Amino acid sequence: MRYDIIAIGDELLIGQVTDTNSGAIARMLSPHGWQLNETRVIGDDAAAITAALDAALAEVDVVLMTGGLGPTKDDITKPALARYFGGEMRWDETVEADVRRVFAARGLELNESTLSQAWVPSSCRVIHNRVGTAPLMWFERDGKVAVSMPGVPHETLTMMREAVLPRLLERFPAGESIEHRTTVVAGIIESKLSEHLEAFEEALPTFFHLAYLPEAGLIRLRLTGRHPDAELLHHMVDVIDDRLQQELGEYAICRGDKPLAAIVGDRLSERGLTVATAESCTGGNIAHRLTLIPGSSEYFRGGVVAYSNDVKRDVLGVSRDDLDAYGAVSEPVVRQMAPGACRVTGSDCAVATSGIAGPGGGTPEKPVGTVWISAAVRGHVVTRLLHLPGDRRRVIDRATTEALLLLLKMLDVR
Amino acid sequence: MRYDIIAIGDELLIGQVTDTNSGAIARMLSPHGWQLNETRVIGDDAAAITAALDAALAEVDVVLMTGGLGPTKDDITKPALARYFGGEMRWDETVEADVRRVFAARGLELNESTLSQAWVPSSCRVIHNRVGTAPLMWFERDGKVAVSMPGVPHETLTMMREAVLPRLLERFPAGESIEHRTTVVAGIIESKLSEHLEAFEEALPTFFHLAYLPEAGLIRLRLTGRHPDAELLHHMVDVIDDRLQQELGEYAICRGDKPLAAIVGDRLSERGLTVATAESCTGGNIAHRLTLIPGSSEYFRGGVVAYSNDVKRDVLGVSRDDLDAYGAVSEPVVRQMAPGACRVTGSDCAVATSGIAGPGGGTPEKPVGTVWISAAVRGHVVTRLLHLPGDRRRVIDRATTEALLLLLKMLDVR
Repeated sequence: MRYDIIAIGDELLIGQVTDTNSGAIARMLSPHGWQLNETRVIGDDAAAITAALDAALAEVDVVLMTGGLGPTKDDITKPALARYFGGEMRWDETVEADVRRVFAARGLELNESTLSQAWVPSSCRVIHNRVGTAPLMWFERDGKVAVSMPGVPHETLTMMREAVLPRLLERFPAGESIEHRTTVVAGIIESKLSEHLEAFEEALPTFFHLAYLPEAGLIRLRLTGRHPDAELLHHMVDVIDDRLQQELGEYAICRGDKPLAAIVGDRLSERGLTVATAESCTGGNIAHRLTLIPGSSEYFRGGVVAYSNDVKRDVLGVSRDDLDAYGAVSEPVVRQMAPGACRVTGSDCAVATSGIAGPGGGTPEKPVGTVWISAAVRGHVVTRLLHLPGDRRRVIDRATTEALLLLLKMLDVR
Repeated sequence: MRYDIIAIGDELLIGQVTDTNSGAIARMLSPHGWQLNETRVIGDDAAAITAALDAALAEVDVVLMTGGLGPTKDDITKPALARYFGGEMRWDETVEADVRRVFAARGLELNESTLSQAWVPSSCRVIHNRVGTAPLMWFERDGKVAVSMPGVPHETLTMMREAVLPRLLERFPAGESIEHRTTVVAGIIESKLSEHLEAFEEALPTFFHLAYLPEAGLIRLRLTGRHPDAELLHHMVDVIDDRLQQELGEYAICRGDKPLAAIVGDRLSERGLTVATAESCTGGNIAHRLTLIPGSSEYFRGGVVAYSNDVKRDVLGVSRDDLDAYGAVSEPVVRQMAPGACRVTGSDCAVATSGIAGPGGGTPEKPVGTVWISAAVRGHVVTRLLHLPGDRRRVIDRATTEALLLLLKMLDVR
């Protein structure tokens, strides 16, 4: 089955809201072997909706529409859909009852424009929205399906998972099985990795595919196989993924698709170790990334954002003489910061950063992008000097990634 | 001028990467009065690129393409563009020199696939990519323009701002002047604010427009005027913006478009005060937001990420009895955290957070989303209890915003 997504809303076209629904829907449907052909983002405009539907239904089996619904927008999308799929607008009493119930439960006052969500095209099957007031609408024409869903992400994705996906699976049963395996790779750039894996990729069966998904400092490698025989496929994916791991060797830092901070967290948990942070130029971003992972309180005790030299000295115990002699962005200073964080928080391990994120503060000897990082595991400390390109945010993000990678490497060898 | 965006990349269609470029480009171009007609997200597929270009060039003046470039993708997009716009593929020596320079500067080894980025269609004007290796390509046909840009967001947006926007402004000069004034508003929800400003908006001249751009905890209000007479417009914008400020009163926290952390930073600088952080549930995100602002080292000294109770007690000096009696997520604890951060870092002010970000850790008395925040200015402390909806990331982000707003309010009254 091939499908298109049409995301509707003026707020998307002016950049006020970013369409995250399309990606989330694609991630939900791709394990079923269904392929997203195209996403179109259009405004709240009847002619644009009609043109997009025409183009989509000429190409694909299913069109998933998000947005363009709700009390302030219903005037445009719903009549356009009624004209497109035929029939008239009818009052749906189950929708009316839903809206009344939701408003009563939230203690909100009901007004006419909200209640008018009960008007729906007679040509659709209404799907009850369990988590909101705008109903979902399922249209069929010439064996093809178009579904209109609200655009608020948690409504779209909840109803997609609970109501739309089961109906699509019934309507378009899978002809083949599909399996994915993701490996997180670090320490090699994409073009080198692709050279390294050239022979492996050429030897892949035709129904296997390897995708490179790079992000700052890391590459996610996704192996995908499709085959009608699910059991055979499962066996082959295992074998080929094993071979991929051999090819990758030390470059593979995680078998599975996880954020770097979660990979570090898993390694700490396995070893029963705790971690702390001592951040100058990254300013709290390493701690933020670690604590975005649910359950991180099991291994993350805390940290110090040591932005001023006083805090580096008074809290982390960095030597005043070294700060004076070498400056804050130096190997001797960053080497003392990580053990300082271990001491202050009572942790086994720590990472530390000190650098010049820019745009100001650079010198000929230490230009913007110069960052010293260190990692400590039970008193053993390693340091590394980075020269990072890009603006302030990128230097901070990349230094964060490199500090976590440095700790991960130490955890793997010690 | 009306334009379309075509975002190219299989990684977008499988949901691995979210297209944030389109929104950022729309926000960059809309102040010039240019309107985004549609965004299409397509795969790395020559036929899809050609079809999207056909459709777009039939509708709009300018097509901005992002992505589909780089060493592993050049095989598809560039030959498709060469076929579409005519000519052949030629070797561009300035691009080759760029690539060699970037790799030499980063100390990376150059390989064939990277160097092959020097192949470009002869029908385009090459625009040098200052921040990456994939060149930008500017095509013209029948008075219409198509620009192909790399898809890595910082490359897209840097080159859009530095190279593409100036050329577009030259090519499509504005027929009228446009002026914008943004005010950052807090402490009122969008629907209430729109009621509050109803009379003001109705009294606006027809060539003025007020846009509501809400984000978590804040609303950016953008006043836009368009008029052929630049001098008259400038005068009127001043007068109307003054009146808007009067209407907004204390809800207006900044005249101008700045991140909240920069607004707080400005207020601290004006008052000659320094700030620190004491973060439990926000895990470093407040410090991270403060330090994303260039020059923040002038007023931000540092902070403590006090994730474990030991760190709250040993580093911030929170009473062990209070931790035992009330728990970490409590008014007495958060009330001691902010002064603790002032003491540890030698700062005048501080913000602190302690809460349950989820998904685990909630109880009937303190469900997920329960967050205590505090702010201290020279020994005076205020606290606030929040009940925040959403997932872990949303709770962290919103608590960060609310803590900064609480400090801002204290700075304004004291």
